[in-house]
Amino acid sequence: MARPKPEIAIIPAPWDKRGMSDRDRKSRFKGPKTGGRGGDRDRERQGQHQEKPQGKQQGGRPAWRDRGAKGGTGDGSVILYGWHTVTMALANPERRIRKLFVTENVARRLADEKIDTRVPPEMVHPGDIDRRLGPDAVHQGLLVEADPLPGLHLDELPQDGIVLVLDQITDPHNVGAILRSAAAFGVKAIVTTGRHSPEATGVLAKSASGALELVPFVEVANLHRALGEMNDAGFMTVGLDSEGQGDLSVVPLHAPLALVLGAEGKGLRQLTRETCSVVARMDMPGAIKSLNVSNAAALALYIGTSRLGLMG
Amino acid sequence: MARPKPEIAIIPAPWDKRGMSDRDRKSRFKGPKTGGRGGDRDRERQGQHQEKPQGKQQGGRPAWRDRGAKGGTGDGSVILYGWHTVTMALANPERRIRKLFVTENVARRLADEKIDTRVPPEMVHPGDIDRRLGPDAVHQGLLVEADPLPGLHLDELPQDGIVLVLDQITDPHNVGAILRSAAAFGVKAIVTTGRHSPEATGVLAKSASGALELVPFVEVANLHRALGEMNDAGFMTVGLDSEGQGDLSVVPLHAPLALVLGAEGKGLRQLTRETCSVVARMDMPGAIKSLNVSNAAALALYIGTSRLGLMG
Repeated sequence: MARPKPEIAIIPAPWDKRGMSDRDRKSRFKGPKTGGRGGDRDRERQGQHQEKPQGKQQGGRPAWRDRGAKGGTGDGSVILYGWHTVTMALANPERRIRKLFVTENVARRLADEKIDTRVPPEMVHPGDIDRRLGPDAVHQGLLVEADPLPGLHLDELPQDGIVLVLDQITDPHNVGAILRSAAAFGVKAIVTTGRHSPEATGVLAKSASGALELVPFVEVANLHRALGEMNDAGFMTVGLDSEGQGDLSVVPLHAPLALVLGAEGKGLRQLTRETCSVVARMDMPGAIKSLNVSNAAALALYIGTSRLGLMG
Repeated sequence: MARPKPEIAIIPAPWDKRGMSDRDRKSRFKGPKTGGRGGDRDRERQGQHQEKPQGKQQGGRPAWRDRGAKGGTGDGSVILYGWHTVTMALANPERRIRKLFVTENVARRLADEKIDTRVPPEMVHPGDIDRRLGPDAVHQGLLVEADPLPGLHLDELPQDGIVLVLDQITDPHNVGAILRSAAAFGVKAIVTTGRHSPEATGVLAKSASGALELVPFVEVANLHRALGEMNDAGFMTVGLDSEGQGDLSVVPLHAPLALVLGAEGKGLRQLTRETCSVVARMDMPGAIKSLNVSNAAALALYIGTSRLGLMG
């Protein structure tokens, strides 16, 4: 999809100063992004799902083995793998499952645990999934092809609690870990500028360990404008940056609260900073003044949740 | 190295329940571990460094191109790459640098910033480093071969502040992020059961973004015994587990404090749990009750540091 160009100067965020890059790991996935802006989700909202042409299944060979490129199916579906990720997807009525590939052991476990697979599982060897995902993916013998979940629109954001806003954070491991923390802290939604490729979604979903099914995404094309609308709607938008005016543990906070995080190595973009109600830092006593972005997100969520009395 | 066998039952930690595995990413590195138990560090302490046989340098070809296997040098050295990681290593007098490989651009930047390289830089093309590290490593055009840092012995632990104890956490991205948070919160040392391969050390160091030079490691063969010694030495050893007796925000804490974390998917081993002064949980209000282990570490460090009045 067309990514909004970075605007004006780039200021590092609190967890950026040493990281140099959100891409501590280069993405393994360079495939085409699915759909245009809001593509699948808009189609999904409108009930206009396109069925993908099914790869021809021959002699027990998984259909996707015939599709050539590793990973993406090229038809707008996402790939989910790993026990928690897949079983959470199977348990989510909002998630439309297209195909389920499992090993014999996993088929037995699914049956033992009386898990409704919703589509007939197709048997594969573990190596088949390895070959599809590459050697680094811990797939645990199961993989689904599914539709992306419907996202929220900005004006559907709940008017209470906490929302996370990610300013061009792209590393799927980081986004996945953030999503998991978001689900742990009962975050209402995650506002992002980007959409991940189907393969990156798989990595993200695995790192999120089921949380992808729990926290809705709001995709926006222009974060500056989106933050402006959130301000108008009564959100307190707090950007996090090591040069922030006050410590997040001290600055006055109110709900609905949006915590805004920038990518490692780049931080919040200038227009993002300028649009936030306040820019706050997180003081730490050590020699390094920055955290991995998912660690920073977890900390900000803990502080925000505690201070708003939302710890439950 | 010989890894102590997991003892008796395995109980998931607070951040484990959904993760299934510390190996959200499979390690790319299957190479032999360097040295035996405490090998290099003991040699280092005793001043018995073995010089490695240098690969023959021919026609501008980097010496390590001749060594065959990607990554490790097989002689007990570690590999560090990335701007922060390498410049922090160059600035650390404790770190013995063996070789420095840089691209032309990086050589210019090092000169511009008047950085003492301590050894003459050897010029390489970016692709040379790519080929050595694999395509996923964001090396930014510089790589060093160096000695591992000398570790601490258990009886050298400072008797104040906070120490982190990692019970078989192996994923180098996670350990790196934990190390970075440890440096941010002024942690005195990290006690671990394992030692990483030279290549995994590179990944760990990159994720730690310089923190590898700041926080000393204590390697122990038997964590149960080490925790017992720490208890005897006056440490409060707090295991973190979702089934813990009290919330870390509430249980009485005192310094010196050891926060003990288990691997994702396995959690604290039974003997580890039993040896801790107390096992605590971290309450969170959301549907998911577990965090990525590095996120959990950051949170535990924030809570521990705040509650002990160490925030500075």
